[in-house]
Amino acid sequence: MASSTSKEMVNPSIVLYGAKNAALEDKPIPELVEPHDVLVRINYVGVCGSDVHFWHHGGIGKMVNPSTGIVMGHEAAGTIHSIGPAVKTIKPGDRVAIEPGTPCRLCKACKSGVYNLCRQIRFAAAPGPPDTQGTLSKYFRIAEDMVYKIPDEMGLDEAVLVEPLAVAVHAAKLGDVRPGETVVVMGSGTIGLFCAAVARQFGAHRVILVDILEKKLEFATSYLGCETFLSSTKVEAEENAALLLKKLDLAEYGIDSFGGHVDTVIEASGATSSIETGIHILRPGGKYVQTGLGKPKIEFPIVAMSQKELIVRGCFRYGTGDYELAVSLIKKGLVDVKPLISSVTRFEDATQAWDKTGRGDGIKNLIQGVQD
Amino acid sequence: MASSTSKEMVNPSIVLYGAKNAALEDKPIPELVEPHDVLVRINYVGVCGSDVHFWHHGGIGKMVNPSTGIVMGHEAAGTIHSIGPAVKTIKPGDRVAIEPGTPCRLCKACKSGVYNLCRQIRFAAAPGPPDTQGTLSKYFRIAEDMVYKIPDEMGLDEAVLVEPLAVAVHAAKLGDVRPGETVVVMGSGTIGLFCAAVARQFGAHRVILVDILEKKLEFATSYLGCETFLSSTKVEAEENAALLLKKLDLAEYGIDSFGGHVDTVIEASGATSSIETGIHILRPGGKYVQTGLGKPKIEFPIVAMSQKELIVRGCFRYGTGDYELAVSLIKKGLVDVKPLISSVTRFEDATQAWDKTGRGDGIKNLIQGVQD
Amino acid sequence: MASSTSKEMVNPSIVLYGAKNAALEDKPIPELVEPHDVLVRINYVGVCGSDVHFWHHGGIGKMVNPSTGIVMGHEAAGTIHSIGPAVKTIKPGDRVAIEPGTPCRLCKACKSGVYNLCRQIRFAAAPGPPDTQGTLSKYFRIAEDMVYKIPDEMGLDEAVLVEPLAVAVHAAKLGDVRPGETVVVMGSGTIGLFCAAVARQFGAHRVILVDILEKKLEFATSYLGCETFLSSTKVEAEENAALLLKKLDLAEYGIDSFGGHVDTVIEASGATSSIETGIHILRPGGKYVQTGLGKPKIEFPIVAMSQKELIVRGCFRYGTGDYELAVSLIKKGLVDVKPLISSVTRFEDATQAWDKTGRGDGIKNLIQGVQD
Amino acid sequence: MASSTSKEMVNPSIVLYGAKNAALEDKPIPELVEPHDVLVRINYVGVCGSDVHFWHHGGIGKMVNPSTGIVMGHEAAGTIHSIGPAVKTIKPGDRVAIEPGTPCRLCKACKSGVYNLCRQIRFAAAPGPPDTQGTLSKYFRIAEDMVYKIPDEMGLDEAVLVEPLAVAVHAAKLGDVRPGETVVVMGSGTIGLFCAAVARQFGAHRVILVDILEKKLEFATSYLGCETFLSSTKVEAEENAALLLKKLDLAEYGIDSFGGHVDTVIEASGATSSIETGIHILRPGGKYVQTGLGKPKIEFPIVAMSQKELIVRGCFRYGTGDYELAVSLIKKGLVDVKPLISSVTRFEDATQAWDKTGRGDGIKNLIQGVQD
Repeated sequence: MASSTSKEMVNPSIVLYGAKNAALEDKPIPELVEPHDVLVRINYVGVCGSDVHFWHHGGIGKMVNPSTGIVMGHEAAGTIHSIGPAVKTIKPGDRVAIEPGTPCRLCKACKSGVYNLCRQIRFAAAPGPPDTQGTLSKYFRIAEDMVYKIPDEMGLDEAVLVEPLAVAVHAAKLGDVRPGETVVVMGSGTIGLFCAAVARQFGAHRVILVDILEKKLEFATSYLGCETFLSSTKVEAEENAALLLKKLDLAEYGIDSFGGHVDTVIEASGATSSIETGIHILRPGGKYVQTGLGKPKIEFPIVAMSQKELIVRGCFRYGTGDYELAVSLIKKGLVDVKPLISSVTRFEDATQAWDKTGRGDGIKNLIQGVQD
Repeated sequence: MASSTSKEMVNPSIVLYGAKNAALEDKPIPELVEPHDVLVRINYVGVCGSDVHFWHHGGIGKMVNPSTGIVMGHEAAGTIHSIGPAVKTIKPGDRVAIEPGTPCRLCKACKSGVYNLCRQIRFAAAPGPPDTQGTLSKYFRIAEDMVYKIPDEMGLDEAVLVEPLAVAVHAAKLGDVRPGETVVVMGSGTIGLFCAAVARQFGAHRVILVDILEKKLEFATSYLGCETFLSSTKVEAEENAALLLKKLDLAEYGIDSFGGHVDTVIEASGATSSIETGIHILRPGGKYVQTGLGKPKIEFPIVAMSQKELIVRGCFRYGTGDYELAVSLIKKGLVDVKPLISSVTRFEDATQAWDKTGRGDGIKNLIQGVQD
Repeated sequence: MASSTSKEMVNPSIVLYGAKNAALEDKPIPELVEPHDVLVRINYVGVCGSDVHFWHHGGIGKMVNPSTGIVMGHEAAGTIHSIGPAVKTIKPGDRVAIEPGTPCRLCKACKSGVYNLCRQIRFAAAPGPPDTQGTLSKYFRIAEDMVYKIPDEMGLDEAVLVEPLAVAVHAAKLGDVRPGETVVVMGSGTIGLFCAAVARQFGAHRVILVDILEKKLEFATSYLGCETFLSSTKVEAEENAALLLKKLDLAEYGIDSFGGHVDTVIEASGATSSIETGIHILRPGGKYVQTGLGKPKIEFPIVAMSQKELIVRGCFRYGTGDYELAVSLIKKGLVDVKPLISSVTRFEDATQAWDKTGRGDGIKNLIQGVQD
Repeated sequence: MASSTSKEMVNPSIVLYGAKNAALEDKPIPELVEPHDVLVRINYVGVCGSDVHFWHHGGIGKMVNPSTGIVMGHEAAGTIHSIGPAVKTIKPGDRVAIEPGTPCRLCKACKSGVYNLCRQIRFAAAPGPPDTQGTLSKYFRIAEDMVYKIPDEMGLDEAVLVEPLAVAVHAAKLGDVRPGETVVVMGSGTIGLFCAAVARQFGAHRVILVDILEKKLEFATSYLGCETFLSSTKVEAEENAALLLKKLDLAEYGIDSFGGHVDTVIEASGATSSIETGIHILRPGGKYVQTGLGKPKIEFPIVAMSQKELIVRGCFRYGTGDYELAVSLIKKGLVDVKPLISSVTRFEDATQAWDKTGRGDGIKNLIQGVQD
């Protein structure tokens, strides 16, 4: 791509046309259409695994239209540039975390408190039709209720991590993590680490992170100080589950230890063996949340699920209250997102940040917004 | 087996020693051990798919001990013969449906309202150690809170069907079937038929039964008058799901039709293709209950589950309030169990009833209790 | 008021300026402002107790502005006249029940699935500022998701009763009425009758209507065929509660009769003695819903509530899914609203319908829409 | 009372015969009746407001039988002395907190997970018939699932405070306190202080203690470091509520601040003005828990409850999982109970501890178990 954004560009944007095919382009500045719209000057955009998949494959499930392309980016924070006539909760200059989806607000999902399940939601950087443009632009338009003011002491780089933290908040809610519980999180990437941090803030008394890479668990220990378990890739899931329970002293049942086993599993890897291990470590009546996405179909121990009467839940993005809670967790100092920020890349070098993440280099890599 | 029970036998019982190896034997009459115990004179015992599996294979998962054997039977109704000193709610001569499990009452599961998940529960006809004797005897001992008085107008043969009806009640509760919902039941055996009948009594406005056999759906229609769908075994699950939605006019989403798709699926077949179809027909946020047991592991569309944020629940037996509700449904005339009773076999010919069920002959075959 | 609507009037409307001060006036036809707006030609408007209170007192809590007045009416059904450019679910000519509130769609309440608690909701015939005009006009504007298509076989007069039926649906949901329950409804006006009818459709096995007027209970019996109890106004609430439980055989507890007492009370009268009786008849852990509004503060048996660990819930209007379910209940023939329609008054005689209702004459009195 | 326990006494006990009439007496050592019974050597007993009420009035609601008297005490910790034949989870010498109630285990409440609502529960120091003896003895018998092993580092004096902490845990559960919430606790006695401490451990981001005594709020601040509000006894409840909201910056609603108001109120004083204030500060859809007991009937703002659709819950003792969680909160250092222990009185001077508590002297006064 061009090595710098041209001064004349009004709304420089990173547009993806297909696998390994991106361009820095000028786009018109979005107009404020609805009375509650605001225009945000983007300060930082985060790189997510899905961005890398788009970069490598030209889409996920749905491919980008190679003739129109799509502006990338959905994790972002910025500064309010201008506001629509009905906006009352935010003003130009306010620093905000951005929730990058606009639901239809009229359907049953929207009116049931689960707008993340809205069929008409327009989510940033999603191929259409109609395409929904992403946040990797100088300016981004969104409704006022989808930006969340951050306090002065919170950096705009930190504010980008509200997005993955909101994913973790959503997962902990769906898993109905309750005070005193033992929670196991499978996978220690950004989402897994945040799920563990959030589970503790939901009152879990034991939180255990599981991964197949010792190095990642070492980071987890230094970051969270939580218990860990190194899964072996050489044993069957049932044996792996038994090892985990034994090593962590969760194996024995007595009259009062129905809850001694694992109460909740949050699966954040998407790997088949991890899913199966997760099911096997749960206590009867335990809860399982699937946040990680992997293969569309996997081998699943359904009889174990039935006989233990487990509650297994799909988990998709974030919804009502998740961003507010994520911002509050950072603001109150209850979750520290800073240690997860690994690098900041210049806007015009966005593809390098995708490559870096694609190589497993760093935890959360950021792209800086357009500099004046 | 011997062709008749000997008059001298005090507690004639059908004992299974292994696959295709059963005997009619005399057992001691159980003593009333706990102050709340009652002794029931058995009038009828039902045959369940699991009985057939025991008969063919000598057990399910756990095999019976070939040297001690185990008294078979867990669906049963009878007449109170005698009662312990603390019993206040029931008296000799009362006619009762029997819930055939005795939980420990002290563990976390028991004290959390889910005694069906008690690890120490002693369920009828379950190989041990210690073995738990079943209901295929002249006399059966159980705690007073596990027998449910039936009204005069209800037959003791009908009372046997309280057991499978309680399974359906439990499934409808776990599926959180709500008034106005569209509920699809996969599989139209005894449990499937009852799940459909119960879903309607939970207020579902559309109930659809799915099977691969036209004949079974014809019975379903005549029995329940509900909608049906004949699944094809020749198409992939996703196509089958699309056909179902199209045929039943459940396919289109509009602003207000988020709930037009299927709200709840109760899977009562255990077949992989049926499970997958069930997942695909659900609306976002829909609910799925697995009552049928099949292969321990199956191919499962986990990404569809995640992206629609489904709630998937295992389902195991029945618990608090399920028998009461099942009895009340029959008593109020809201579920008619009679049409499902296909035959009554003499006690000493019990194995013939298992064979009959094994051949798919009849829906619910009963075994008569010992005649004086 | 004038005895007929003038042919030249474009949008004849009944405007209230204060107590006993109403006028038939012409108003401009509302414009379609939002892309999802629809314009409805009103066919029928129902009279509610709150209309009578407005008529007698000039408002409820908030008074109407005597210089601007307010168009009355909030229970209504009509025919779609025209639609905004984004409307897809409804078309001109469709016959609809109208949910008469427009929530803000952006606040936490709206996004949590409880838009009835939205602080910015604009509800028909609510004094402002800003005033929200009611449905007693020839034309009424509302968003497309707030009109509910009715089937051909349902009369537009019946469709007016979707509103009070939706109140009952909302109450039954808040009361979490479950299959098999014993539900007592206090008060047998329109709302009470519908609460009883809906409780049965939620699966209640016993539904009992309570009132202090024998005549109303006689109607209830003929309408619903449900059990009734005549409350005495001469005894204390605790004694009244004891009488009710005794007469209806709900008083005795045994090992299995924890649920023999009353599971749910829906209070639909607002009278202090009725509220207190309602609390006392509930079983430990029972549920109580307050739909009736009376005095702002009343004597409340709070220790009984605490010691039985009751769940007491306020109930306000209707929300997500309530109208859909109410329409479906009528459509499926599960609730018959016709017997509650007592009279139809001409549009220009609207005040006579209020007077009639004020005198306790009839159950649900309707006002006909403007005739061409 | 006698100034010391006689060495010959096998089971010295403090027996109350009526108001201001107590005696130190010898009682037989309870036998292990059920196979799961254990015998506990009592180390400490706490004094609760109800003990003072018994001491001053001879009972609460039910009076003690003046001819048989009743052994006092229900907050207690001790050391396992001996165990029944079926006991597996605990052994002689184990140090335990005692949950002082024995439910029937067979009724619907027990089997529904709410054994605290069991009608046949035998709770320590409750006048009968039959009387249930309390914990103010050298030895106390209870079932093994009602004693909770404490870790070595926890003092037996601290273990006594598991009881009031379990009350607070129960209240927080009923109030469904969720991460990020603003919780107001009315009343800052032992229960109020613990409710505030527990609400924080349930994830509340703001916790506010309210009292009418500045001195108590000063202690609360030093103990918990939480926000406080001094209620005025000179203004009406609505004005008091407005002052609280204003002072704590909880008054203003904007699009996103539906949750800015108070999410949950836990009332721990029982005073009418406090109850009313609690109702008025809640947001629409807010939750209210009544733990404090005062007058049987009070003036209650029921229309405010209805129009805000509040959830109001009674709260009675503690149930499944509450003791486990309370022990774990202390063990993990999440709640520090030590600062609330004000004094320790010798066993034979028990009535002095009641008098001290009656005078408002100290927060939690303990009575030492019988010394050898």
